Amino acid sequence: MSSSSLPSSQKQVHLLKRPGRAPLSTEILNVVTAPLPDVSNLASGHVFLKTHFLSLDPSMRPSMDPSKKSYRPPAPLNETFWAGGVGTVIKSNHPEYKEGELVLSSAFGAQEYADMDVAATQRNGFFYKIDPAKGIEPREYLGGLWGTGLAAYLGMKEIAKVKKGDRVLVSGAAGATGGLAIQIARQLGASYIVGVAGGPGKAKYVVEELGADECIDYREANFEKQIASLSDRPEGGMDVYFDNVGGQTLDAALLAMNPNGRIACCGAISGYGGSYEGLKNSFVIVARRLTLQGYIAIGTFWPQDVYQAAIAQLATWLAEKKIATRFHFYEKVGVENFLDALKALFEGKNWGKMLLQVDPEWKGEGSKSAAK
Amino acid sequence: MSSSSLPSSQKQVHLLKRPGRAPLSTEILNVVTAPLPDVSNLASGHVFLKTHFLSLDPSMRPSMDPSKKSYRPPAPLNETFWAGGVGTVIKSNHPEYKEGELVLSSAFGAQEYADMDVAATQRNGFFYKIDPAKGIEPREYLGGLWGTGLAAYLGMKEIAKVKKGDRVLVSGAAGATGGLAIQIARQLGASYIVGVAGGPGKAKYVVEELGADECIDYREANFEKQIASLSDRPEGGMDVYFDNVGGQTLDAALLAMNPNGRIACCGAISGYGGSYEGLKNSFVIVARRLTLQGYIAIGTFWPQDVYQAAIAQLATWLAEKKIATRFHFYEKVGVENFLDALKALFEGKNWGKMLLQVDPEWKGEGSKSAAK
Repeated sequence: MSSSSLPSSQKQVHLLKRPGRAPLSTEILNVVTAPLPDVSNLASGHVFLKTHFLSLDPSMRPSMDPSKKSYRPPAPLNETFWAGGVGTVIKSNHPEYKEGELVLSSAFGAQEYADMDVAATQRNGFFYKIDPAKGIEPREYLGGLWGTGLAAYLGMKEIAKVKKGDRVLVSGAAGATGGLAIQIARQLGASYIVGVAGGPGKAKYVVEELGADECIDYREANFEKQIASLSDRPEGGMDVYFDNVGGQTLDAALLAMNPNGRIACCGAISGYGGSYEGLKNSFVIVARRLTLQGYIAIGTFWPQDVYQAAIAQLATWLAEKKIATRFHFYEKVGVENFLDALKALFEGKNWGKMLLQVDPEWKGEGSKSAAK
Repeated sequence: MSSSSLPSSQKQVHLLKRPGRAPLSTEILNVVTAPLPDVSNLASGHVFLKTHFLSLDPSMRPSMDPSKKSYRPPAPLNETFWAGGVGTVIKSNHPEYKEGELVLSSAFGAQEYADMDVAATQRNGFFYKIDPAKGIEPREYLGGLWGTGLAAYLGMKEIAKVKKGDRVLVSGAAGATGGLAIQIARQLGASYIVGVAGGPGKAKYVVEELGADECIDYREANFEKQIASLSDRPEGGMDVYFDNVGGQTLDAALLAMNPNGRIACCGAISGYGGSYEGLKNSFVIVARRLTLQGYIAIGTFWPQDVYQAAIAQLATWLAEKKIATRFHFYEKVGVENFLDALKALFEGKNWGKMLLQVDPEWKGEGSKSAAK
């Protein structure tokens, strides 16, 4: 597409109101039609992008409200809501980027086109070119090379320090992050991997597709006992627990640990729901000399060499097809479906990393256009 | 005392029954009169010791029952119950130990005299000479140089990695371990130290005697709020929490932490009692990227160079009077008071590290004989 064929306006999704505890609705997030900026007059260092698809992230919900618990300020009101994505350069006033190049950025926003200051974006997030010669699927830039992959890699490698022969437990095992965590643990030499997932279908997937040695179904009534009793095995309990869910699963997992066990605490510690009242088994933290470490897979929280090494290792494994993210493209195409896709994410209707295809012409792996 | 003036029998305290949940009584721990071994025929490598005083440790209670939670097997039945202590060599068949030398050992047992295999004791615990020239009070060998001091030092230095300028929170602050932890944090360069202790008298002691900058009284109704709101201070929250008590204090302390805060989990995580139902604030482990690490101050769990460096540093500070343990000699003298002293310990009647003077002739610092 050349800039001459651009429409005069575009759809954007704006945050209109802070939701507090209210369910998401069009009063909170709604579509606004806005004129397209004048691309004939693009500022120096800027590029103008067409959005192909966006990442839908669990952290979007808490980002709508100010919170003492959060590690960043809330999303601004009456502006395009934030979203990372993949798109193509339509017009460039930056020497390093040319028309037609595919890029990843954390700053697309929930809109069809984006005018982006490259240097400013790189200071506060991601902006980089996708090189098709690397053999990595474009959507993996929002999966294995995005927060999903980094959370799995940094948790397993830098926090839990998985090494050859370790026995590793992973909750949220059928999800995008947990699924990558299992594959990464195997690459790092884990000898035995136990997943925790919901329902026999997902448990089967965790073993047969992801390569875990077994999977505990958290919908079974005695799942906490199944987890805790892992430490009764003759071959020993678990050396590492990758905690994706917190709550009573974490509580049971404490009892599954071997002495000197390491627990990587990733994502919101909320539990799978149910009658959870708080961690009751924390006494084993002392008795078994456990380490629990919370972390967030955002570059500014990590030494740059560690973070870049993580991205490089993930890129290698992705190109070699040694690891792969499970994706879920929302069933409808178009940015006007952003709210519904987000609601589906929070209702847990996705199985895999949730993406929204914005551009009906995009034909990459998994896209609705490719499936036609 | 020479071996010629030895009595023909001695009092020992035997473990007769596993208590389970029953309160301690003479059915469980009782005094037995046993003949003294034939010291004229001491085995090679053995020494025969007179017990001056013993350490009473919280871990004695759980050690009476087998437990999956415990890191060691239960104390054997119908034998002298274990206890560490300080005593004098009465007779020696070991080339490195001479009559009249003062020694520390983890293997005195609750008895008046002990026949000890030096090498075996050193393999499984402590046995070493106390050199009076070092200028360290003999009782400090069961305080600052015992589990108490090692727990405080290893927690602050190796687990929480206290460094210059850190803001440090310590629970159980008026106790022996917490008190040493405060003094050690100051030696390591902590800039601001907050204690948590029970009652205005102890809170005053924590500030005036131990040198904490302030102390929160956990008997005040809103103490959890006082702890949690430490993170609202303009100068920031806490970088380190030395957790002596677990429970709702740990839960509140999670909210007091700065990002990247380190929590050293020491001792049984049981809480001060009350309506505690489990850790509810564990979400901040992720949001603030906290590390919680449990540890046990027993030599076999540590690299020998780290452990020996800890002992050397503690000995230096003790000799220079830069740190000191608070001791509580049980009010009666004699091993027959072992059960009552232990009950007093579990009822929290002591303020400081609890010792039992066994030998009425011992005249060291704090002893009942010295006080006369």
